[in-house]
Amino acid sequence: MAVRRPNLFRTGPLATSRVEAFSDGVLAVVITLLVLEVKVPENLRSNAEVWAAIRHIAPVLLAWAVSFAFVLTFWVSHHYFFASLKHTDRGLLWLNGLFLLSVTLIPFPTGLVGTYPGFSAPLALLSGAMCLTSLSFLFMRVYVTDHARLMLDHIPRRQLRAALIQSAVAPCLYALAVGLALVWPPGAILIQVGVLLLFVL
Amino acid sequence: MAVRRPNLFRTGPLATSRVEAFSDGVLAVVITLLVLEVKVPENLRSNAEVWAAIRHIAPVLLAWAVSFAFVLTFWVSHHYFFASLKHTDRGLLWLNGLFLLSVTLIPFPTGLVGTYPGFSAPLALLSGAMCLTSLSFLFMRVYVTDHARLMLDHIPRRQLRAALIQSAVAPCLYALAVGLALVWPPGAILIQVGVLLLFVL
Amino acid sequence: MAVRRPNLFRTGPLATSRVEAFSDGVLAVVITLLVLEVKVPENLRSNAEVWAAIRHIAPVLLAWAVSFAFVLTFWVSHHYFFASLKHTDRGLLWLNGLFLLSVTLIPFPTGLVGTYPGFSAPLALLSGAMCLTSLSFLFMRVYVTDHARLMLDHIPRRQLRAALIQSAVAPCLYALAVGLALVWPPGAILIQVGVLLLFVL
Amino acid sequence: MAVRRPNLFRTGPLATSRVEAFSDGVLAVVITLLVLEVKVPENLRSNAEVWAAIRHIAPVLLAWAVSFAFVLTFWVSHHYFFASLKHTDRGLLWLNGLFLLSVTLIPFPTGLVGTYPGFSAPLALLSGAMCLTSLSFLFMRVYVTDHARLMLDHIPRRQLRAALIQSAVAPCLYALAVGLALVWPPGAILIQVGVLLLFVL
Repeated sequence: MAVRRPNLFRTGPLATSRVEAFSDGVLAVVITLLVLEVKVPENLRSNAEVWAAIRHIAPVLLAWAVSFAFVLTFWVSHHYFFASLKHTDRGLLWLNGLFLLSVTLIPFPTGLVGTYPGFSAPLALLSGAMCLTSLSFLFMRVYVTDHARLMLDHIPRRQLRAALIQSAVAPCLYALAVGLALVWPPGAILIQVGVLLLFVL
Repeated sequence: MAVRRPNLFRTGPLATSRVEAFSDGVLAVVITLLVLEVKVPENLRSNAEVWAAIRHIAPVLLAWAVSFAFVLTFWVSHHYFFASLKHTDRGLLWLNGLFLLSVTLIPFPTGLVGTYPGFSAPLALLSGAMCLTSLSFLFMRVYVTDHARLMLDHIPRRQLRAALIQSAVAPCLYALAVGLALVWPPGAILIQVGVLLLFVL
Repeated sequence: MAVRRPNLFRTGPLATSRVEAFSDGVLAVVITLLVLEVKVPENLRSNAEVWAAIRHIAPVLLAWAVSFAFVLTFWVSHHYFFASLKHTDRGLLWLNGLFLLSVTLIPFPTGLVGTYPGFSAPLALLSGAMCLTSLSFLFMRVYVTDHARLMLDHIPRRQLRAALIQSAVAPCLYALAVGLALVWPPGAILIQVGVLLLFVL
Repeated sequence: MAVRRPNLFRTGPLATSRVEAFSDGVLAVVITLLVLEVKVPENLRSNAEVWAAIRHIAPVLLAWAVSFAFVLTFWVSHHYFFASLKHTDRGLLWLNGLFLLSVTLIPFPTGLVGTYPGFSAPLALLSGAMCLTSLSFLFMRVYVTDHARLMLDHIPRRQLRAALIQSAVAPCLYALAVGLALVWPPGAILIQVGVLLLFVL
């Protein structure tokens, strides 16, 4: 490691461009892989059977659309978040890695929900993965608040704390969705869609 | 959100580079995933059987080539479109997300068309996905026309409106292809190939 | 289209950065997808069976390594080629698209060669895909030679022509490999490995 | 080749940006593909069966998490390594290709370990792939030490040598893990996790 530090100190702190590029790559692959769960049905013998098969995979398409919107929302947040940073450091790289790990978990429970639409367990798992993702994003925000020198501009501490509290709402709601999924599944779906609408608007 | 706005206001509006990188990523994955529908046939016992299997998957290869050209065309359009922008905002990010969602839908009906080449339903679905994609691209154009400050240069309103009308041709033709697919499938293929040739030339 | 031209003329010709990013994306996905042909064998009951399964998929690993080296070589060439350009235009974007289409074809015959290592047909197909790829790359070179304003520096026409002749060697050798595959398969493999060594050294 | 050299000499040595972008792409796809080994189980008939299936695939999830952390660690190292370079050359491009080839091998033994958690052979293979990856990374470091003009700053030769020795620790430990996997599997897992912790801390 001794090899790199001197260089890095001299060329100044690490730019954010490559973390952004790598994260863009992972999020782009995740968001596109989601559609692989929508499999071409086999042994169809007529147009009527094709339409029936499409109706049959409607829950998969719905689960896909919700997860797509979820990953997209976090890409937008990630975009704005890193646009507010001056540079990055090793700690933030690892937290970003944790965030990416949570996001790459999304396609698996999404596939489960699409395959077993009537069950509560897949819905609880999907809500759990979403909770983990939003939690790891909150970690990144907390870290940056504690390492203010990473940010582009000085922001009053009070204002930052208010923003963090706002950011903590999403993981709490998703945690609630995990519980709700087990007792009243439609509630979990409502929360998932609700949080997304909250983000977009 | 309060955390980010002050930074963003001070560093000026959001650059387009990361939307372009993310879109490039998604389009690159989609265009490459298309080929996954071309599956290695199993249990072949001679060279003659290999050649026969290749002939058998010719429709898959054709569907793949058409969809490849379609995604490539939209990548070129996307490239030119964002090259004409000064910066982006939240609204355009979401519309771009809608565009990406439509594009990631393409591999599924492409696989259907390749697997059931004689059926009309897959062709109607593929035309539908293409219609949705070109429609969401039109939305982005309309949005930018309404938010002229996002553009690099002032363009006379009359000229913009003329351009929008031109852009509206593709979704209309694809909508027509959806209908045609159900009554006269070759017509839908002709429209799909025709629109592509129109774009390239 | 009228919408874009004025902007583009004013901001100057299109930068090469996004074609490079998109091509990087496609090549990165292709080179990684190749490994998906190396499938985890099922129903193994002992360590001895695991080792036997590994020996069994040795041809797949070999086919994978050759195709990986092939795509990597073309990425290096693509990198150097675009580094020598000042900017790009619509014509080059389409030719680059043709190149990407040929490259995304590589995983399919690679999978065939790995699955049917003793057959000549898959080897002919792989050589054919390699021929197409190197041919489309030659097209890009020819195009740029004809549109010298795209290049960073003026290079004497005689020198360019000499370079083009050199570039035409690879597609010719791969075409030869297609023929050889059908009569003497080892010859095709020798050519494939030989051309790669020629590129690296 | 004659075509490119003159341009490249005049525009100065090749920038590192595109190697970084391509490597980011490959690593992003590899890290996301890992999760494809976590397959949606079929024919589940109740929530209890879903939970049982989740417990059943716990080893797959664990293998996935370890390999994810491994690829992420090498991405961080790659990031810091290239940030310390002024520019790149053909030799480094090929060594980087060798590194990417080793990394793309990771998903296959990861899938094996997840599918056959009680066996020693898959663990030996995974350790072998990790050894190869860290070895090829060491090659890049050695190459750059020998071609000091590629680096941003002059670093005393003695300090570089010390750093190289440090870098050689990981491949040695992974080679040890290959041997340990065959006689005492838990030891191999301990080494794999231990090296990662060493990197992060």
